[in-house]
Amino acid sequence: MTNINENFLKLQNNYLFSTVRKKVEEYQKQNPTKKIINLGIGDVTLPIPKSVIEAMKNACDEMRDSTTFKGYGPEQGYDFLKEKILQKDYYSRGIKLEKDEIFISDGSKCDTGNISDIFGTNNRVAITDPVYPVYLDSNVMAGRSGEYIEQNGQYEKIVYLPCDCENNFIPELPKTKVDMIYLCYPNNPTGTVLTKAQLQQWVEYAKKTKAVILFDAAYEAYITEPEIPHSIYEIEDAKKVAIEFKSFSKTAGFTGIRCAYTVIPKEVVGYTRNGNEISINALWNRRQCSKFNGVSYITQKGAEAIYTEEGKKEIQKNIHYYLENAKMIKQALENIGFQTYGGVNSPYIWLKTQKQQKSWEFFDELLEKSHIVGTPGSGFGPSGEGYFRLTGFGSRENTINACISMKNMLQ
Amino acid sequence: MTNINENFLKLQNNYLFSTVRKKVEEYQKQNPTKKIINLGIGDVTLPIPKSVIEAMKNACDEMRDSTTFKGYGPEQGYDFLKEKILQKDYYSRGIKLEKDEIFISDGSKCDTGNISDIFGTNNRVAITDPVYPVYLDSNVMAGRSGEYIEQNGQYEKIVYLPCDCENNFIPELPKTKVDMIYLCYPNNPTGTVLTKAQLQQWVEYAKKTKAVILFDAAYEAYITEPEIPHSIYEIEDAKKVAIEFKSFSKTAGFTGIRCAYTVIPKEVVGYTRNGNEISINALWNRRQCSKFNGVSYITQKGAEAIYTEEGKKEIQKNIHYYLENAKMIKQALENIGFQTYGGVNSPYIWLKTQKQQKSWEFFDELLEKSHIVGTPGSGFGPSGEGYFRLTGFGSRENTINACISMKNMLQ
Repeated sequence: MTNINENFLKLQNNYLFSTVRKKVEEYQKQNPTKKIINLGIGDVTLPIPKSVIEAMKNACDEMRDSTTFKGYGPEQGYDFLKEKILQKDYYSRGIKLEKDEIFISDGSKCDTGNISDIFGTNNRVAITDPVYPVYLDSNVMAGRSGEYIEQNGQYEKIVYLPCDCENNFIPELPKTKVDMIYLCYPNNPTGTVLTKAQLQQWVEYAKKTKAVILFDAAYEAYITEPEIPHSIYEIEDAKKVAIEFKSFSKTAGFTGIRCAYTVIPKEVVGYTRNGNEISINALWNRRQCSKFNGVSYITQKGAEAIYTEEGKKEIQKNIHYYLENAKMIKQALENIGFQTYGGVNSPYIWLKTQKQQKSWEFFDELLEKSHIVGTPGSGFGPSGEGYFRLTGFGSRENTINACISMKNMLQ
Repeated sequence: MTNINENFLKLQNNYLFSTVRKKVEEYQKQNPTKKIINLGIGDVTLPIPKSVIEAMKNACDEMRDSTTFKGYGPEQGYDFLKEKILQKDYYSRGIKLEKDEIFISDGSKCDTGNISDIFGTNNRVAITDPVYPVYLDSNVMAGRSGEYIEQNGQYEKIVYLPCDCENNFIPELPKTKVDMIYLCYPNNPTGTVLTKAQLQQWVEYAKKTKAVILFDAAYEAYITEPEIPHSIYEIEDAKKVAIEFKSFSKTAGFTGIRCAYTVIPKEVVGYTRNGNEISINALWNRRQCSKFNGVSYITQKGAEAIYTEEGKKEIQKNIHYYLENAKMIKQALENIGFQTYGGVNSPYIWLKTQKQQKSWEFFDELLEKSHIVGTPGSGFGPSGEGYFRLTGFGSRENTINACISMKNMLQ
């Protein structure tokens, strides 16, 4: 009799986005003439830059020719792409890493989920709250949580680090000892960042407690303030304790093309129950060689093009566009009296509802009065209650119309 | 303190292909004028068909245009590809399946490895011996094995189903009860197949014992004999017990492009320890939605093109080419007195060495006398000892030269 992994049964069905969709459909049905503007979108909308497309089309031509055809590539990714990453994303910031510390993959969602494979199920996991659900769900699936507690919206055994306006969205160090710490900065969903000093505290905590930090920097390209770290390795000793996830999805519009990379410095170690040090890099390499077969050559050639002068200009233009949208939304919200967070080093604006309005109530009001769709903060975790996420990923036209519509909402 | 998954430490380093490479490099160094022919290759060598390349280039153009740009796609794959798969791979064989029973992925290696996530660690796993190492290694990592036993080359708790010339490479039903059964037909590495009647036995066994069959049909397109099943769902009731993995890698030369699909009929169930039935399809859907983010739109458009009239012709031409190579190698080996298996419904030829010569000894002899590289059977499992794998994936010229060279070897 085949037993299933019963940890899956602990998972709560996250109806967040499907509930959003249903409510929008219902509203549109009852108000067929109203133009609804979607600012709930967490996906890019601008097309792929020309230089990337040209590189991919050239790679297609290579695949058509027997002299340049590529079969299986390295599971860890091609050197041509790793070299660009090292040079442009790390050496340029004074961070020294080696090629075999970079693992190209088909997405940070996959990597942040699959990384769980190489760790023991007895580790205690810390996540910020609100949080990108993959960190939590992948650990529930792996058996690192207890049951879900309806009353507080938390899983047993998981250490939640609340981030709200009380602590200015800076998570406090955990009071109980933890072994695996997920941090995402610039943060999804709150759009907030950590300074070097704040991140340094986490690196020190991890060093002291022999924990590992899983640092998701998928939104790094949106950082505009010069003092904010783009990589956790800008922090002293982070190479001893941190794994970094980076993605081309939001940097270069690759959400539908699928390319990302994970950095595991060789100094990062985990421990056997007997206290023996084991290289995390070697474990991940083994995992990827056994359960992954590399990223499409065409995709990797596209990713490489991002690092050309032309490609860099093109992606920066797109990022600037989304950030301008975010700025407008933030300004519009503040003009009508909302407290907002994020939106400066991030495409995400996190707003606090007024008069302790619940996230879903705000959703309904915003849809009815302004015909704008956003994402209720409570969908990202219990500490997201009373908050709401809007994004700069819409078109300029929609963003401007949304801002006007919001202004009218409170008049 | 971060604990690692100590099951990883049980894994044996599989030095098979790196040892092959080192030996070849060494030989070439000492014999710089000798032209070595590689028939050990398990990768395609013919370039991607024109119709696929054109579809991918068109998809690139779509990604460049804001009106046709695609961001995140469905985690389970686009309907346009699923519809072609259903129509051409299943309905055409009288097999009825639904779209939500098909999961598009970036490779069967990933799927056959990751599928382990949704099953309990207490299941007993059966694999054929010799075997494609992913099935074994992913289960060792997940904790379904005991330690590796040097003496017999087997992991404790894993049920090995020996396949050799004694049983004509038809695995016997296990004597101990098993819960997860990996079958790969046409088989890698032996190139052998199962008839419908032989496969029917496994379906009946699985039904009776409430086991699940994980059926890898990556080489299905190489089947030439009309009575051999192309899908396990050609067998009555297989939809109740079997998951099927299919890949575009060997069918259409996609090893460097990455696309495959997994079929999980909704009738397939696993069980909780309390004996409650749980849908395996729903578990895998949850797994993929949490830890996977879909396959590149460009890749999926390329895969779709395989199902056009033109695409079908092109890929069949390539498959025919590899099968002709395999036929030549098989004939050449038999002419000089070797017993061979496979090579009819598969690009792989599995030969039995003579006078009980060890696989690695034969490797050395073949390299020295004929300058041909192949793969020692013992690298695929203890029952592979005394066997050797050659493949039809080389160029025609190399294949012909290898056949001549082998003929001279024994003269």
